Amino acid sequence: MAKELVFGHQNPDTDAIGAAIAFSYLVNQLGYDTEAVALGEPNEETKFTLDKFGFNAPRVVQTVSNEVDAVMLVDHNEFQQSVSDIADVQVSHVVDHHRIANFNTANPLFYRAEPLGCTSTVIWKLYHEYKTAIPKEIAGIMMSSIISDTLLFKSPTTTPTDEIAVKDLASLAGVDYEAYGLEMLKAGTDLSAKSEQE
Amino acid sequence: MAKELVFGHQNPDTDAIGAAIAFSYLVNQLGYDTEAVALGEPNEETKFTLDKFGFNAPRVVQTVSNEVDAVMLVDHNEFQQSVSDIADVQVSHVVDHHRIANFNTANPLFYRAEPLGCTSTVIWKLYHEYKTAIPKEIAGIMMSSIISDTLLFKSPTTTPTDEIAVKDLASLAGVDYEAYGLEMLKAGTDLSAKSEQE
Ligand SMILES: [Mn+2]
Ligand SMILES: [Mn+2]
Ligand SMILES: [Mn+2]
Ligand SMILES: [Mn+2]
Repeated sequence: MAKELVFGHQNPDTDAIGAAIAFSYLVNQLGYDTEAVALGEPNEETKFTLDKFGFNAPRVVQTVSNEVDAVMLVDHNEFQQSVSDIADVQVSHVVDHHRIANFNTANPLFYRAEPLGCTSTVIWKLYHEYKTAIPKEIAGIMMSSIISDTLLFKSPTTTPTDEIAVKDLASLAGVDYEAYGLEMLKAGTDLSAKSEQE
Repeated sequence: MAKELVFGHQNPDTDAIGAAIAFSYLVNQLGYDTEAVALGEPNEETKFTLDKFGFNAPRVVQTVSNEVDAVMLVDHNEFQQSVSDIADVQVSHVVDHHRIANFNTANPLFYRAEPLGCTSTVIWKLYHEYKTAIPKEIAGIMMSSIISDTLLFKSPTTTPTDEIAVKDLASLAGVDYEAYGLEMLKAGTDLSAKSEQE
């Protein structure tokens, strides 16, 4: 099977990067050959999360058609939020939690969106559907993505499924999600505050 | 929960009508209030199937915004294949197996597409995911839809999942799918031949 790249939107947030890592791992377990990449450097909150669970920041790409014929999108679908040459490759998979707009394909594809608080919550459901074990580190980064998108369940976009997913993932990751979540959100805020002062 | 309508594309084939009936039943079991309707009269093949499993033809609608605020689309997504006033309602759910084009929403939604031979195969997967029992008659109409779209597994769009679904559904419906499938496909063909002669 030809290699594909998996990535989230431009100006990536924790879900854009966490969902790419988690979905790439899942589909590789199912027999695909994918690499999670990113359309920009991780922000401070995401760096904190990657460090905590032992991941390197995904490779940043400017274009994809020079490397692959097909890609998998997470946490977005609108072409103007995607890689610059998105129209030159096939989109084989999308996993998302946003409206659909400015998106089209020439061929049938795997498209999975649900109106939940976070793409990583949809991916947590997919791991269960495909009966694939979630490694501790992947659980940690998915949990972080959901905490980030839902602001630790304070965002009005939060659903009961997001809360169930975070609790399940926290237990797999061996983390107190409330203490960790506050620390993670603070890591994002602190650094922004610091750079404003600088 | 406000009532929603569920329907397939214009000039409905067996999957457009069968998937609407099967998805409406599923989401009603999950707590939604929906009615399966159609954008046209059933063809001869579909009439044969509806008769066989004891369904009336779904009510034909020309517009939907006079009845409901939100709809669920099956077996299509392109607005020009949908109801005339599709732009005036919210699309809350889509289940499909086609490319995505000329489709957009203002809000997040449930969108489930897979590159399988038939929408009813995707719906068969959904029944399993949501641990909902498939009644005998619904199994019969879903099986018929898959046989119709895959031409009894002869179409190049057929996947192994479509075959597994038909065998499972045939056993639930208590039908010999090969004998029934040939009879059903013939019912569609015979009548077309007859009306050409007339
Ligand atoms: Mn995002
Ligand atoms: Mn997100
Ligand atoms: Mn159809
Ligand atoms: Mn179909």
